Amino acid sequence: MSSMVLPATENLLETREINERSFSSDGKAHHQIYKVGIPPKQNLFNEFKATIKEAFFADEPLRHFKDQTKLRKLVLGIEAIFPILSWCRAYNLKKFRGDIISGLTIASLCIPQDIGYAKLAHLDPQYGLYSSFVPPLIYAIMGSSRDIAIGPVAVVSLLLGTLLSDEIDPTKQPEEYRRLAFTATFFAGITQATLGICRLGFLIDFLSHAAIVGFMGGAAITIALQQLKGFLGIKSKNFTTKTDIISVMKSIFKTAHHGWNWQTILIGASFLGFLLAAKFIGKKNRKYFWVPAIAPLISVVLSTFFVFITRADKHGVDIVRNIEKGINPSSVDKIYFSGEYLSKGFKIGVVAGLVALTEAVAIGRTFAAMKDYQLDGNKEMVALGAMNVVGSMTSCYVATGSFSRSAVNFMAGCQTAVSNIVMSIVVVLTLLFLTPLFKYTPNAILAAIIISAVISLIDFEAAILIWKIDKFDFIACMGAFFGVVFISVEIGLLIAVAISFAKILLQVTRPRTATLGKIPRTSVYRNTQQYPEATKVPGVLIVRVDSAIYFSNSNYVKERILRWLIDEEEQVKGDYQTKVQFLIVEMSPVTDIDTSGIHALEELYRSLQKKSIELVLANPGPVVIDKLYTSNFANFIGEDKIFLTVADAVASCAPKMAEDP
Amino acid sequence: MSSMVLPATENLLETREINERSFSSDGKAHHQIYKVGIPPKQNLFNEFKATIKEAFFADEPLRHFKDQTKLRKLVLGIEAIFPILSWCRAYNLKKFRGDIISGLTIASLCIPQDIGYAKLAHLDPQYGLYSSFVPPLIYAIMGSSRDIAIGPVAVVSLLLGTLLSDEIDPTKQPEEYRRLAFTATFFAGITQATLGICRLGFLIDFLSHAAIVGFMGGAAITIALQQLKGFLGIKSKNFTTKTDIISVMKSIFKTAHHGWNWQTILIGASFLGFLLAAKFIGKKNRKYFWVPAIAPLISVVLSTFFVFITRADKHGVDIVRNIEKGINPSSVDKIYFSGEYLSKGFKIGVVAGLVALTEAVAIGRTFAAMKDYQLDGNKEMVALGAMNVVGSMTSCYVATGSFSRSAVNFMAGCQTAVSNIVMSIVVVLTLLFLTPLFKYTPNAILAAIIISAVISLIDFEAAILIWKIDKFDFIACMGAFFGVVFISVEIGLLIAVAISFAKILLQVTRPRTATLGKIPRTSVYRNTQQYPEATKVPGVLIVRVDSAIYFSNSNYVKERILRWLIDEEEQVKGDYQTKVQFLIVEMSPVTDIDTSGIHALEELYRSLQKKSIELVLANPGPVVIDKLYTSNFANFIGEDKIFLTVADAVASCAPKMAEDP
Repeated sequence: MSSMVLPATENLLETREINERSFSSDGKAHHQIYKVGIPPKQNLFNEFKATIKEAFFADEPLRHFKDQTKLRKLVLGIEAIFPILSWCRAYNLKKFRGDIISGLTIASLCIPQDIGYAKLAHLDPQYGLYSSFVPPLIYAIMGSSRDIAIGPVAVVSLLLGTLLSDEIDPTKQPEEYRRLAFTATFFAGITQATLGICRLGFLIDFLSHAAIVGFMGGAAITIALQQLKGFLGIKSKNFTTKTDIISVMKSIFKTAHHGWNWQTILIGASFLGFLLAAKFIGKKNRKYFWVPAIAPLISVVLSTFFVFITRADKHGVDIVRNIEKGINPSSVDKIYFSGEYLSKGFKIGVVAGLVALTEAVAIGRTFAAMKDYQLDGNKEMVALGAMNVVGSMTSCYVATGSFSRSAVNFMAGCQTAVSNIVMSIVVVLTLLFLTPLFKYTPNAILAAIIISAVISLIDFEAAILIWKIDKFDFIACMGAFFGVVFISVEIGLLIAVAISFAKILLQVTRPRTATLGKIPRTSVYRNTQQYPEATKVPGVLIVRVDSAIYFSNSNYVKERILRWLIDEEEQVKGDYQTKVQFLIVEMSPVTDIDTSGIHALEELYRSLQKKSIELVLANPGPVVIDKLYTSNFANFIGEDKIFLTVADAVASCAPKMAEDP
Repeated sequence: MSSMVLPATENLLETREINERSFSSDGKAHHQIYKVGIPPKQNLFNEFKATIKEAFFADEPLRHFKDQTKLRKLVLGIEAIFPILSWCRAYNLKKFRGDIISGLTIASLCIPQDIGYAKLAHLDPQYGLYSSFVPPLIYAIMGSSRDIAIGPVAVVSLLLGTLLSDEIDPTKQPEEYRRLAFTATFFAGITQATLGICRLGFLIDFLSHAAIVGFMGGAAITIALQQLKGFLGIKSKNFTTKTDIISVMKSIFKTAHHGWNWQTILIGASFLGFLLAAKFIGKKNRKYFWVPAIAPLISVVLSTFFVFITRADKHGVDIVRNIEKGINPSSVDKIYFSGEYLSKGFKIGVVAGLVALTEAVAIGRTFAAMKDYQLDGNKEMVALGAMNVVGSMTSCYVATGSFSRSAVNFMAGCQTAVSNIVMSIVVVLTLLFLTPLFKYTPNAILAAIIISAVISLIDFEAAILIWKIDKFDFIACMGAFFGVVFISVEIGLLIAVAISFAKILLQVTRPRTATLGKIPRTSVYRNTQQYPEATKVPGVLIVRVDSAIYFSNSNYVKERILRWLIDEEEQVKGDYQTKVQFLIVEMSPVTDIDTSGIHALEELYRSLQKKSIELVLANPGPVVIDKLYTSNFANFIGEDKIFLTVADAVASCAPKMAEDP
């Protein structure tokens, strides 16, 4: 340990040294100031490479490929595309036990949900099951999350149903509607895979967490409202096709007198009570997580049996009636590759694909963080994209990771994506042998299952936390929420995206600035608002700019600094203190500057010159100092006006201050 | 001055004090560390008000209204809308001398330019003159720039001409074309005024300087190419209507054998030579700025006279022939307020209005900085908008500030907007009495004048500087340039905007991070890349995050920090040094954090915990520390893990390091 020097001891020695060299024998301050470092000039290609790397390959996907033989690289490459090849070698019976239990659990949860979600997308129930067969298999081979449960999900089903039925009426043209659904699914997959391959995965980061919370909550309410029709047994053909709360409520009350069916309500309400109770138990004691997980299947079995023996369907209780038997038929020839529906399918696919991606990546990240393994977002996107492209050719609609089923999967102790394979096999067996059993399942039960499922998408706690932490985020959250609930899913989504972007733009155009003061008994300069005890140095105004200075904010930054100066001057006038003679700009947080930024600094310098105030810069970073020299600005204001720290800069101003009466 | 304490002396005392309290008698370090300040909780309304104020009223437009009587406030309000009322009181003969000279100079420059620019917009020549009459008057009353010269400009004329002729053929339907032009002008004005009134002026900051340089250069070349037809005397009706260089060159060479007119070329070339020589003289010696300013008018007079006596128009030299006499007719009833052209005019107006605004605001700012007066961007926009709305009703097309004429105005010694009024009067007199004199003016002269005018829009020096300072900016610049030259004006503009946005997005999603080391002989920690001599503290990794942590980058920031850690661990393994035990995140530049950011920090903390590394934060700002406490993250990681400076944080880690072998 002899080579290690304790920093604290070193400080002791050094501060003395600084004091010694700062003051010579005549008592006047002579500064031997540490020069601001200018990083060695990089060549253009390296500079460019570094930027590209940081932008698109920030996670160094090729790190493992370094220093390997060619064959090994090939193997690693194949394993990178199909992670199953690498983890299956370490697979063992113990892991399989976890996977089979969790696989069976999510299968029991997904079967009734799938049937309900397919209805939400205005598709026949079997398409929901189809989408829980092929996509999970593909994901198991290509995906790298160990906990995600793949299949149709409520929000994407709702979104797809809304967007598709804006184009084609699903009751009048069911065949065309299905074809458009497959087309959209195909392009959703293409979008996802393209983003992954082009390493543009960071684009989905532009949907802020707050906006997603609001959007999900709104979607949950919209979905629950949609279920009221089935839940109340309303048969009216005039039921609104709109999804906003006002239209739906109007339709419901209009049918209150003659359209509601008490038997349906009775069945629905009692099983909803059962499901919610199961949910409550699961929440209270995590040991009983399987209670809410199998409650839906139990409800389906019980209610189906009940309807079958009472023949309640003859008393107006709506039943599923028919689910086609057999596994996914091919749908390759059904995708629109030409005609007007091509572009419509493409647009819908892009939107649905992005929303599905956001959900899947959020889930993947959450569980990866919990179990502490790394997920490559871009690779995940390729896997999700591939799975939807294959899905679109095998009669599936857009599948993604489901929040509720993934949580159950996790709690049931899943170890790898094998749990998805188990689920997929159970779904296939259901499709092959059990579909006739669903004939008497009342639709009200499906409605109850969906309502109880989407309720957990309304995240009150997150909304409260958002309110506490960031009011602007809360506006985004509420905007998305009310947009979905009162207008439509698309508008809600649009509001969420728009507010997220507005926040980014505001951040970029209006960076924070602060005046600094000296913290007593230190040589540290800090924000005077945060540390009211920090003292200003008379005659010196210290301003910190908290952002890179780019074209989008250069003008604001310049004007804001001048406004700090005006404020200071006004204050000084009142107090008869010394006039401001030095303006120190603390540049530590200024990570970059562009041509507009340099122009702004030049203009600032000129404005200050007219007021005989000297411009002093403190601690410009490597990129900034380089550009200050390249643009000749450093020589323009004088190299001796650039210091390593604010303390150095103040010290250089102070002697002149002393000579001035 | 007894209350003033010399900071340098104070430092001397204080550093000793720090040393004393850092080390007690037993030689071990006991830290009495300065607590990170938590700013007093603001109430919600104030917080919100502050955000809104900083976003939309950053320049405090109501500063002067404070502490005034109601009557005074009313007067100030009227003066704010019509600045002429406040400056005209201080107007005197000396100022008028400057204004009349500069006014006459820019009038002599604008008359031939106006005629040429109107042709660029596919309008009759008088419309160019109309647009130099009404808009400058309105601007003089409402605008606050003293140097800007208002009128039609080359780039906006080109843009308008291109966009309008995409909709209506100006030769076949001249009346409809004009009406659409007035409609577009109306909406250009509405757009500008709306941006100003809603205080959204900062939106135009999103067009980066680099993109503008490229766009202007490209537009200049396109305009010059357009002039070749008139310059070479080509009469072919099949001359391309496209503006890209390839189409235009093809058309020119196709007509080379029979379509060129040598007399036209002779006149055009000799006067172009004269104009360029005048420009050169003006550039060499700024005293002779008036030479290039009056050269165009001299060329017009000479060439007109020459054509008149030689009757060169009978030998194929194209002449202006007819400019309608009389001042602007009303065009209120010509604006499309309904029908399909309403929306087309609206769209074109918005684009043209924004481009015009960008130019005017850039000019206004440049000259305001040179003479050191403040310009309220939003108020300027209202003035420009009002002037174009009034213009659209008086047969004007979009007017804005002209670069070349404003520079001449400035150099001729203009004092106030009165120079615009003088110019406007001269234009009116021309319209009333002199238009018949332009009958024999050869079109080749107008082409030569426009070519010599737009040449200065190609700013080589700026492009070279951009290349030197920022390579990404240079790509934006070149993208816009080649987009305009090789494709079209709209595409070039689109590329400019897209690249500008891409840069902002890149900035927001990929903030810089750096590892810090200790600068020898100080207690200052700085970027190890910039200061290679900075020493790392063994066992401690110090990372600085250079941006607010928002949803758009939270995930990247977290992963980047973990990657720094992996890099460090790999290095340490090789050197058999101590394992990293502390990760200090320097948060000074982190000005804000949102819910996603807090989540990312939590995830970071958990990942570190699994590796038994402690997370330590240094110097979180006021907003961040507040949110760290509100979200309970501060208590989660331990309040004693948050320090005022990196040095304090390192000192707190060091003793534990020392005990550890």
